[in-house]
Amino acid sequence: MSTTPKAPQNAQFKQTVLDSFHKQGLMRTLGASISDLQPGFCEISAAYSPELSQQNGFFHAGVTGAIADTACGYAAMTLAPAGCNVLTAEYKINLLRPAVGDALKARAKVIKHGRTLTVCQADIMAVKERQEKLCAIVVATIAVTAPPSE
Amino acid sequence: MSTTPKAPQNAQFKQTVLDSFHKQGLMRTLGASISDLQPGFCEISAAYSPELSQQNGFFHAGVTGAIADTACGYAAMTLAPAGCNVLTAEYKINLLRPAVGDALKARAKVIKHGRTLTVCQADIMAVKERQEKLCAIVVATIAVTAPPSE
Amino acid sequence: MSTTPKAPQNAQFKQTVLDSFHKQGLMRTLGASISDLQPGFCEISAAYSPELSQQNGFFHAGVTGAIADTACGYAAMTLAPAGCNVLTAEYKINLLRPAVGDALKARAKVIKHGRTLTVCQADIMAVKERQEKLCAIVVATIAVTAPPSE
Amino acid sequence: MSTTPKAPQNAQFKQTVLDSFHKQGLMRTLGASISDLQPGFCEISAAYSPELSQQNGFFHAGVTGAIADTACGYAAMTLAPAGCNVLTAEYKINLLRPAVGDALKARAKVIKHGRTLTVCQADIMAVKERQEKLCAIVVATIAVTAPPSE
Repeated sequence: MSTTPKAPQNAQFKQTVLDSFHKQGLMRTLGASISDLQPGFCEISAAYSPELSQQNGFFHAGVTGAIADTACGYAAMTLAPAGCNVLTAEYKINLLRPAVGDALKARAKVIKHGRTLTVCQADIMAVKERQEKLCAIVVATIAVTAPPSE
Repeated sequence: MSTTPKAPQNAQFKQTVLDSFHKQGLMRTLGASISDLQPGFCEISAAYSPELSQQNGFFHAGVTGAIADTACGYAAMTLAPAGCNVLTAEYKINLLRPAVGDALKARAKVIKHGRTLTVCQADIMAVKERQEKLCAIVVATIAVTAPPSE
Repeated sequence: MSTTPKAPQNAQFKQTVLDSFHKQGLMRTLGASISDLQPGFCEISAAYSPELSQQNGFFHAGVTGAIADTACGYAAMTLAPAGCNVLTAEYKINLLRPAVGDALKARAKVIKHGRTLTVCQADIMAVKERQEKLCAIVVATIAVTAPPSE
Repeated sequence: MSTTPKAPQNAQFKQTVLDSFHKQGLMRTLGASISDLQPGFCEISAAYSPELSQQNGFFHAGVTGAIADTACGYAAMTLAPAGCNVLTAEYKINLLRPAVGDALKARAKVIKHGRTLTVCQADIMAVKERQEKLCAIVVATIAVTAPPSE
């Protein structure tokens, strides 16, 4: 899939994203962390724990959705000007297979970077004994809001 | 919106849903509970805690999505034959307003009940000082799988 | 579902919508017309013809999607300031039943009216011998762009 | 994005798809044709005409959605057993750029092939003077129904 250029406008984008991420109580609650971050790309990982399960003991789709949505937001933030906030306007998740494994990885990339709307796509992989399986895909629309001073 | 009849095929549907819900580690982690359950309808509530927050201190969209998805699944389960499992095939969430408040309530109802696919819709309300505001809407496709004996 | 107030900012909203609609070659091709228009609401109807069919002879889902998307856009336009353009950022359609009938009606209403993004929902009814059946639901995000002079 | 194997179960899949496609009145009305067809893949193309336009003269999003949805359905059909029917359960479209050009091409591939549900993704390209631009992405859930004799 063709994508847009990935030149960050905020030289401090990594710090900006990490600062924001660390304010997210939910990511701490889920034990999630940013495992990769590049211009236009963000990967968030979470290790399995029974506290993240659905009724059959797999990762709950709510975890899949939460880390995918968050990865999409921060992928968008890597390309936004300094001071911007990002808010998810909508996302859709297709759950392809039960999320069975030791860990989940949500890999989000920017598909279309716009001034007010950025569209991201995430692949969510279930990792079991170092083998990855695609278990869900997400497409999200992220609203990028200008810094208050504008 | 017109909907389908709501006659439960499983006389024990309430117990079936509660048994399944209590196996969901994530719902416990989020402090969520089923606050209403009727044929074709399920409401899940969660009280605010900083452990559920995004970067601005509001409810994280991941919580909104998780309880809405779960409420949709159990709304579908109320109408399924005994022994069936429900799995979300996909859902889409539109986040209309920041989820600011003391509690979130996801109210899911069955829009179309089918033998293998059931479509549900959820309104998610942010409750602040007893005032409710619609903060998100979800439409979900739930796959209903036959009991193993079939 | 609670919705937002419906006070039009453009006193000429009906004419604005009709002028735009009549420029849409596709709506003419599909034989579609605006059958109701109120602040925050738009209904578009199309009569059945074999030229609109899918492989089983029913209305093609492409017709359902096209009139629903268009109805959502114009529902948003009824509440937009004069001179604004509306563009669909995304929509999702759940097809609940085959669209069998003499006519299709897409009824779109504004769920959340925002300055830059408006969220609309549409019910699409298949009409057969004056009986209506809900055959699809759509949720759309509409980007409202300011007039060029701003 | 990892995908599933692409071994067709129906040796006549090309003829099966073409026979079905040619029964779709809407595709004829839109001037659309199947321009590529492989196991797990379908491309549908449509040339620009004012009869397919929205209010600014671009391709109407309804055309984009219609050919993308159709391409997803037939991508799924290439992998289905002989005699199966395919019905779109839902799709979501993100419109990334105005669809300006001489032609539209919707390229759909199967992401996850299942016995009853197949998930497909489509990129829709606007072609202008032989240059392609990604103007929309679609993710669709296709219900594959068994032949009547089963």
